[in-house]
Amino acid sequence: MIRASIVGGSGYTGGELLRLLLDHPQVEVAQVTSRSRLGEYVYQTHPNLRKRTQLQFCDPQTLQPCDVLFLALPHGQAQGEIDRYAALAERLIDLSADFRLRNAEAYQRWYGHPHAAPAWLERFVYGLPEFHRAELRTARYVSGVGCNATAANLALAPLVKAGLIEADAPVIVEIKVGSSEGGAEGNPGSHHPERSHVVRTFAPFGHRHTAEVIQECGLTNVKLTITSVELVRGALATAHVQTKSGVANKDLWRAYRAFANENPFIRLVKEQRGIYRVPEPKILAGSNYADIGFELDESTGQVVSICAIDNLMKGAAGSAVQCMNLMFGLEETLGLEFPGLHPV
Amino acid sequence: MIRASIVGGSGYTGGELLRLLLDHPQVEVAQVTSRSRLGEYVYQTHPNLRKRTQLQFCDPQTLQPCDVLFLALPHGQAQGEIDRYAALAERLIDLSADFRLRNAEAYQRWYGHPHAAPAWLERFVYGLPEFHRAELRTARYVSGVGCNATAANLALAPLVKAGLIEADAPVIVEIKVGSSEGGAEGNPGSHHPERSHVVRTFAPFGHRHTAEVIQECGLTNVKLTITSVELVRGALATAHVQTKSGVANKDLWRAYRAFANENPFIRLVKEQRGIYRVPEPKILAGSNYADIGFELDESTGQVVSICAIDNLMKGAAGSAVQCMNLMFGLEETLGLEFPGLHPV
Amino acid sequence: MIRASIVGGSGYTGGELLRLLLDHPQVEVAQVTSRSRLGEYVYQTHPNLRKRTQLQFCDPQTLQPCDVLFLALPHGQAQGEIDRYAALAERLIDLSADFRLRNAEAYQRWYGHPHAAPAWLERFVYGLPEFHRAELRTARYVSGVGCNATAANLALAPLVKAGLIEADAPVIVEIKVGSSEGGAEGNPGSHHPERSHVVRTFAPFGHRHTAEVIQECGLTNVKLTITSVELVRGALATAHVQTKSGVANKDLWRAYRAFANENPFIRLVKEQRGIYRVPEPKILAGSNYADIGFELDESTGQVVSICAIDNLMKGAAGSAVQCMNLMFGLEETLGLEFPGLHPV
Amino acid sequence: MIRASIVGGSGYTGGELLRLLLDHPQVEVAQVTSRSRLGEYVYQTHPNLRKRTQLQFCDPQTLQPCDVLFLALPHGQAQGEIDRYAALAERLIDLSADFRLRNAEAYQRWYGHPHAAPAWLERFVYGLPEFHRAELRTARYVSGVGCNATAANLALAPLVKAGLIEADAPVIVEIKVGSSEGGAEGNPGSHHPERSHVVRTFAPFGHRHTAEVIQECGLTNVKLTITSVELVRGALATAHVQTKSGVANKDLWRAYRAFANENPFIRLVKEQRGIYRVPEPKILAGSNYADIGFELDESTGQVVSICAIDNLMKGAAGSAVQCMNLMFGLEETLGLEFPGLHPV
Repeated sequence: MIRASIVGGSGYTGGELLRLLLDHPQVEVAQVTSRSRLGEYVYQTHPNLRKRTQLQFCDPQTLQPCDVLFLALPHGQAQGEIDRYAALAERLIDLSADFRLRNAEAYQRWYGHPHAAPAWLERFVYGLPEFHRAELRTARYVSGVGCNATAANLALAPLVKAGLIEADAPVIVEIKVGSSEGGAEGNPGSHHPERSHVVRTFAPFGHRHTAEVIQECGLTNVKLTITSVELVRGALATAHVQTKSGVANKDLWRAYRAFANENPFIRLVKEQRGIYRVPEPKILAGSNYADIGFELDESTGQVVSICAIDNLMKGAAGSAVQCMNLMFGLEETLGLEFPGLHPV
Repeated sequence: MIRASIVGGSGYTGGELLRLLLDHPQVEVAQVTSRSRLGEYVYQTHPNLRKRTQLQFCDPQTLQPCDVLFLALPHGQAQGEIDRYAALAERLIDLSADFRLRNAEAYQRWYGHPHAAPAWLERFVYGLPEFHRAELRTARYVSGVGCNATAANLALAPLVKAGLIEADAPVIVEIKVGSSEGGAEGNPGSHHPERSHVVRTFAPFGHRHTAEVIQECGLTNVKLTITSVELVRGALATAHVQTKSGVANKDLWRAYRAFANENPFIRLVKEQRGIYRVPEPKILAGSNYADIGFELDESTGQVVSICAIDNLMKGAAGSAVQCMNLMFGLEETLGLEFPGLHPV
Repeated sequence: MIRASIVGGSGYTGGELLRLLLDHPQVEVAQVTSRSRLGEYVYQTHPNLRKRTQLQFCDPQTLQPCDVLFLALPHGQAQGEIDRYAALAERLIDLSADFRLRNAEAYQRWYGHPHAAPAWLERFVYGLPEFHRAELRTARYVSGVGCNATAANLALAPLVKAGLIEADAPVIVEIKVGSSEGGAEGNPGSHHPERSHVVRTFAPFGHRHTAEVIQECGLTNVKLTITSVELVRGALATAHVQTKSGVANKDLWRAYRAFANENPFIRLVKEQRGIYRVPEPKILAGSNYADIGFELDESTGQVVSICAIDNLMKGAAGSAVQCMNLMFGLEETLGLEFPGLHPV
Repeated sequence: MIRASIVGGSGYTGGELLRLLLDHPQVEVAQVTSRSRLGEYVYQTHPNLRKRTQLQFCDPQTLQPCDVLFLALPHGQAQGEIDRYAALAERLIDLSADFRLRNAEAYQRWYGHPHAAPAWLERFVYGLPEFHRAELRTARYVSGVGCNATAANLALAPLVKAGLIEADAPVIVEIKVGSSEGGAEGNPGSHHPERSHVVRTFAPFGHRHTAEVIQECGLTNVKLTITSVELVRGALATAHVQTKSGVANKDLWRAYRAFANENPFIRLVKEQRGIYRVPEPKILAGSNYADIGFELDESTGQVVSICAIDNLMKGAAGSAVQCMNLMFGLEETLGLEFPGLHPV
């Protein structure tokens, strides 16, 4: 059994991670920390875990050595203490934004302050198995992924990997997101009467996750526009892309099918009939699947490429567990079998 | 023109009141106070009022005399300064819970502390026109109504007024409410991911609005149970009542029809076909109507009596404006004509 | 491995059953029938199952013998062909309402027509393990449960089993339900703009599931009132009950704790702090748990008893799989481990 | 008083039109037709109108001459009978798609069949006052507007009218829409459990409303992508546009301010603080306002331009009444004063 601990278990990502690890057949959860809820049962914060565990939140200062340490802290906190955390476990997965970018300069440009541990940046592998499976098998330090970045990266991956778009083509990715992306702490805009049924384009340009798309897809002209919609879990990326001259529908089918075949959690959704013809996040709540689809405008070569995920699963805790499986030589899908619900 | 001012205009009730008064053909809004948003345009808080008014929130200390003063403060604040407020206007309408009960002892029992101005209690008329129309025409001081109390009182009114139930019959009123009942200030439970899609019976017994039902209906054995549901505006009261022996369906029809005929904002909804056969709050958003309906179990004489309202309108600001119309000898429905939307 | 087949797999209950059986470690799904979707992949109807199974809907006439046959047909269809179905499998679980009542007369009274196979009624065990665990271990024929009946029965069970209420005490159960209770077929009232955000008391009296509460709890004076709310999955029963004279809070704690301890899927939720203090259906989506809670009004002995379930799980497919586990001598919780999500 | 009749009053657009005309101070509603609900009270279909009118749906064959005839029929029906309808009234407003395009060839290309009355196309004025105010004052025949087209046209209008973009610049407009856009007739995808909480990009390319954007904005390279979200009323268009070289932030402010100042129902929303900083459809339910906003990426000259509307108001019935006001020389805003609700 792998002994795993979680630092920062009271947030939404930490809670999902805990749920996944508690049910994982090869993992034993040792400790879960939370400064603000010290001594409380984890099920008082995550009520779905009642009758599943008697774990209580403990002080991060009492952390014991373990096999893998997950950091689920607010962005900016892990980088200051990375040496201490790394000393506690052979393997470490940090779900925050602190170690996603390989380049300290890019970090400063997008996050507005210098990185506190720039030497660590190159030791981390970006935690998206669909892009870094081989490296993850031998990695000791793995970053999390941005949820919006993941939706965008997986929407663009089939096109990029098959070489169907130019690196400098203008790419516009419209992302619609649920309220859990904002985390477990409330703010005036998350008060239910105000947040309910919004269609709120809060980030027309410049969202920080853009940096992860630029880095991972190698595209130089990508814009992300983020709009909040009425949904708790889920993100849908709709990417508008100009393909290279001569790209035909059959090339796209081949590229998307290949990407879905090579990756256990990627599904191609492109149906001619029925209700669910295109990727949709609602049926993915709790699932680690990323559903992808596309449409080509043959007269212009423009493609709309779509990816739906559960932001807390494939966009956060799910990908982290998938990475852990790879790092420990386990079946990639272990503990991630829940397929989602219908109807929901 | 009636010059009206509002004390406490940044909350939900204050905002709705402001919207109604701005469009009221016989009212001119003089001042709207808010300590926390001093100097800001009211439309920055109530975005629906953009391009409708350039009013700015002012300091309550700068209040000028006016014809009618509306108090929309958090509960407990009006009673301490009632003399000052009453000195500013010939007529005063307080929407808080401070002056709803006629009895200082009952106030202390339900609110847990002695009333700060008990002598004022008997000067106020309870602001529900369906119960006190005649007194309201000559009243100088009028209280607001509790939203849950209003849904319950209007569900029970036809039975009480027609004498179809005993005063000591056990009455259970289940009320389902939207999130705007909690007011404009957020709390951990109102954070969208937590509040979304709840069916949360947060008050099984002892809700303070019970006191208003006991007082107004004269029933001695009433219980209110309140459950939050996914809805911003709206409350539905479903009352379970044992009628007097011998009460038949035709007696109920007569009682409910009479109540609807005597009151311009009461509608009887009891259809055999179509989608909207029973009272429902969703179509009442923004409207001052209270829709009522009933069902009799002939074998036992039990009645389910239903009332739907918009908690911010008939359950708060709408009834207050209706009272103002009566106090000033205006048409009762003036400025309250918006019928609600379909679909919505 | 247990070979299981499902008759009627295109509805919501059939789909959930299929999801559970596909992931059940001791079950192999042999056939799933649907006349209307003959030959289609099951994932075209239940999109969560894409990449999980290549099963196609088959004709019910092609059914082969198997170890256990699940019937998930619209109410009224199983009773006419029960002999044929029973000949196909040693064990049979019918999720419709056809075999829930033990009494043909009661069936006719509540369903309005004579039962087509009254002799079969006594061969069935009512499929709620919390009421019939011992009989289910040896049962060959097991009925499903009504979702509203289950919420009501489990809300009342601790009181009934501990003898805290009289059999003829008046019991009012208010049940709030999601839209999936109406099944997979649309109707004018389920069209999204009309169904959205309803609080619609569509069944004030006389809901058919009442018969299951009378039968299982042995209470003679029970009323169910059903109200649709904005929710896809979930039901919350709030029962209003008068306890016997002298029943104190500690008696209730003992009764509820005992019921939760004796049953793996019952959880007692009664917290003094935090957001989730009372049972709520939203965190149960996909889970087989039934969360129960209570509140006593000490001055009168009235109790509000609450039960939250996922209507498609504990109220339908989940209880059916739980019964199957008991019938085959398996661990009762096998294949039902998904705890639900937070946030959701 | 203007005598107005409505052909096709049982749909959502017809219902909203009816609500507006019933409250319009200069209009008397003469007749409302519906073949499928002949003889029923209009409030049985539009429950918000209960106690507001005793009108009953009548047969279209019984239509009497009137001052203005509104056609709110399903697309394709008006063109076949336009001569008959035009003979009934001096002025006619058709809310369907039949007479929106000025060009029969374009109609055939986008709608897939030849127009039945091509000679009538040039007699109609496109019913968007922000584009055709002067012509509308003297028009006899006015078309309705597509709701998605309106959101897109008003998002692009400030840029187009101020000459800030090239006619052949690539323009991508992402539109998020509520379920009422699909009309009052249900379909499998509009069944509440399936439609609830979707983020469904059902039209990546080729939506018919594109033709209205090309026609009205004079742009040659416009793509509309439409995504359904959880919302009943409302549409948000987010347009991605490349501005001409040298366009600065102050040019955009000037253009958007001018457009808002010249048009009574256009509001510029671009705040630095508060919850409502950008245009959002949720606060527009029932209102005729179109809220617009923008953001410039100075390094590239790309603009995100946003417009929020209520699809049934500014995107349908509201604009039609606004046109009627202009056609009859009335105040443009008459009968359209409802500002929308907050919170909602």
